[in-house]
Amino acid sequence: MEEKIPYKTYLSENEIPKQWYNVRADMKNKPAPLLNPGTLKPMTLEELTPVFCEELCRQELDNDTPFFDIPQEIQDFYKMYRPAPLVRAYFLEKALGTPAKIYYKFEGNNTSGSHKLNSAIAQAYYAKKQGLKGVTTETGAGQWGTALSMACSYFGLDCQVYMVKCSYEQKPFRREVMRTYGAKVTPSPSNTTAVGRKILEEFPGTTGSLGCAISEAVEAAVTQPGYRYVLGSVLNQVLLHQTVIGLEAKAALDKIGVKPDIIIGCAGGGSNLGGLISPFVGQKLRGEADYQIIAVEPASCPSLTRGKYAYDFCDTGMICPLAKMYTLGSHFMPSPSHAGGLRYHGMSSILSQLYHDGYIEARAVEQTSVFAAAEMFARVEGTLPAPESSHAIRAAIDEALKCKETGEEKTILFGLTGTGYFDLKAYESFNDGTMTDTIPTDEQIADSLSRLPKVE
Amino acid sequence: MEEKIPYKTYLSENEIPKQWYNVRADMKNKPAPLLNPGTLKPMTLEELTPVFCEELCRQELDNDTPFFDIPQEIQDFYKMYRPAPLVRAYFLEKALGTPAKIYYKFEGNNTSGSHKLNSAIAQAYYAKKQGLKGVTTETGAGQWGTALSMACSYFGLDCQVYMVKCSYEQKPFRREVMRTYGAKVTPSPSNTTAVGRKILEEFPGTTGSLGCAISEAVEAAVTQPGYRYVLGSVLNQVLLHQTVIGLEAKAALDKIGVKPDIIIGCAGGGSNLGGLISPFVGQKLRGEADYQIIAVEPASCPSLTRGKYAYDFCDTGMICPLAKMYTLGSHFMPSPSHAGGLRYHGMSSILSQLYHDGYIEARAVEQTSVFAAAEMFARVEGTLPAPESSHAIRAAIDEALKCKETGEEKTILFGLTGTGYFDLKAYESFNDGTMTDTIPTDEQIADSLSRLPKVE
Repeated sequence: MEEKIPYKTYLSENEIPKQWYNVRADMKNKPAPLLNPGTLKPMTLEELTPVFCEELCRQELDNDTPFFDIPQEIQDFYKMYRPAPLVRAYFLEKALGTPAKIYYKFEGNNTSGSHKLNSAIAQAYYAKKQGLKGVTTETGAGQWGTALSMACSYFGLDCQVYMVKCSYEQKPFRREVMRTYGAKVTPSPSNTTAVGRKILEEFPGTTGSLGCAISEAVEAAVTQPGYRYVLGSVLNQVLLHQTVIGLEAKAALDKIGVKPDIIIGCAGGGSNLGGLISPFVGQKLRGEADYQIIAVEPASCPSLTRGKYAYDFCDTGMICPLAKMYTLGSHFMPSPSHAGGLRYHGMSSILSQLYHDGYIEARAVEQTSVFAAAEMFARVEGTLPAPESSHAIRAAIDEALKCKETGEEKTILFGLTGTGYFDLKAYESFNDGTMTDTIPTDEQIADSLSRLPKVE
Repeated sequence: MEEKIPYKTYLSENEIPKQWYNVRADMKNKPAPLLNPGTLKPMTLEELTPVFCEELCRQELDNDTPFFDIPQEIQDFYKMYRPAPLVRAYFLEKALGTPAKIYYKFEGNNTSGSHKLNSAIAQAYYAKKQGLKGVTTETGAGQWGTALSMACSYFGLDCQVYMVKCSYEQKPFRREVMRTYGAKVTPSPSNTTAVGRKILEEFPGTTGSLGCAISEAVEAAVTQPGYRYVLGSVLNQVLLHQTVIGLEAKAALDKIGVKPDIIIGCAGGGSNLGGLISPFVGQKLRGEADYQIIAVEPASCPSLTRGKYAYDFCDTGMICPLAKMYTLGSHFMPSPSHAGGLRYHGMSSILSQLYHDGYIEARAVEQTSVFAAAEMFARVEGTLPAPESSHAIRAAIDEALKCKETGEEKTILFGLTGTGYFDLKAYESFNDGTMTDTIPTDEQIADSLSRLPKVE
């Protein structure tokens, strides 16, 4: 094996980014603003702050400031688990027999098991600084909830997590990690909120969705004094915090003198993908460099590839602001037999705009092929990947195999967002050969899209 | 926080040790030899090779060679997950308010979740080199079985794992990780072996023990052509491979100019502790330096602190060679309500001899205090520790609190052998407040010791 470039490149601790990068500042077409669902006018700071922490609202609305200083307390916390390694996938390249050079930025070396901690600690910090008692949130696969409970524990904040019911049932141990960090976890939809009770009435026996859980968490935040709602993906503020991934990856690549040709990330709400690609897209927007950027989503929840670019609710309960995004409709429920994460009906407004403007492309992959890629990756690279991350692995392997056919020595970078330790029910169904692919019909998607709010 | 020393110190890849260190070469009193249970004479290479891989038998019997070259294939694999970080526990120090300086060597950043992979890959390599079809083994907490399945998958070997029944039931997801790496997992005692059937008859409803599982795995190895048995702890060869932990830790400490006063490791069979301390004990044996070295064992399975230094069977089925060690008797069964790992009845012969000669000390800790330490560590250091590792954390915290009382600025190094992602049943009982301490009575231990083989 070639070894001039090490297997793992770590920045030194003082090279961890001290600022987040706001890609919106370099976008000519800014992402569309959040709308008040009552007035259909752009949400103001005053309208957002009853739900979200004030400083986070400022970040949410700021399309112009290119860099935000990372507060020292957050920088300190980042040192607990960062810098994250940039890994050269020599073992995978060898197993594939490809001339491609494959790198991945691994964000799973922390107990939450994913990149989510990058934003969780920032959001907990601003909540603490504002003098709040606690925060509420939703979690799907459980990574965000775990990350937030770690962050809240660090700052002594109460943490209330609404966990999508099917994940709650498939991942009982996630609950215990969150409890170990002191969080209170409720399966969603629940009868602890008005919106939860309404959803249960309308869809009895539902296994839940991120959209439902968001509605419940928002309601819990606005009905308890001293609480605000925090969200692990989709929002501009989250993508801002997650740019620490891309900034570190780019600094590490620069250090070893490597420029990627293709950058790949999995796409659910968009936080990992947005964070990874922001500095590279920034170069593209400024005309300084070009990259092929691929968003990979599950075929069972294909918001970019089969959704509509339109204003929609971020949540099923329709109590959140409207966001313009590629969406399958807030009533879209991915099949419960879909185990691969990334179950959100919409996509970050920033990524939606970038996709709409042609700066990134998208493809959908089926879960059995995702788990086949995951198994191969686990065996040769030694890390059991999260199903979400494995969508990116699938696409990276596919690109590397294309290079094998053409002989091109492309350099591929992908985001390995997390580990699969809590996804073993899904691995079990793959190991047993009982996993199926679940692709929504055109009718299902059309029906859900027909219920989009009317905004013009 | 003081930050001249980084939170994490990584060696560069070319600083990963290229040789293992054999501490026996520096011991004046060599560990007692394994005995043939029939003849009571020292086991010869010829007697060992039907059970173990040949090269590993040579390593087992070699008390004189101070260094063994690490084969290139193993060095390559080590780069997949090594170097492991040496972490300065700034957050823990701050939370404790101690003047002590605490470091830990973290071995959990790989999918097996522990240090076990260091020896698994070596043993799989020698099995492959010998042209074997596969290997058999036992696993308790599941870390060794996972590590071995990863290693066997890498070299294309069949892997058959006998998993202690109570762990098999408490940790269903461990099985799926092993299956993802292609291993076959059987709960032990099972009726697939003669010795398993005998144990089930004698102790119906037993939740198993490492000793039982070893007997079954050995029987499976010697009754299948092309198979050998491999073991994840206790043996000299395993401690040899695990010295990569201590060598890396010492190199990293040297790099930052730190000399520890106290070195702490958890002790089950002894592989982690032996691996961590070997280079330091070597200095002590050669009179070059002095360290306080503490082995921490569970109060429910206290082989060093309450066992007898005597020849005993390594396994419950009494088909393995006799080893001289601190032992509770091969019939000792730790309480099934003990969740904290480290369930083995004996202790590595090397460590037993070093303990007997006063080079290391030992203490036993109760599991509720271990999990309290684990929870605190998880919250402040951000890593959910394995219950086994948490024994070392408990002792490190206790030593740091002593420093707080005396004002001494001692430097403490401990081994954080792994993560607790698969131990959440145990965390659940701690979170629920239903965990109890299970300390064997003097009668229980005396009864088990009365059945020691007669050797003199």
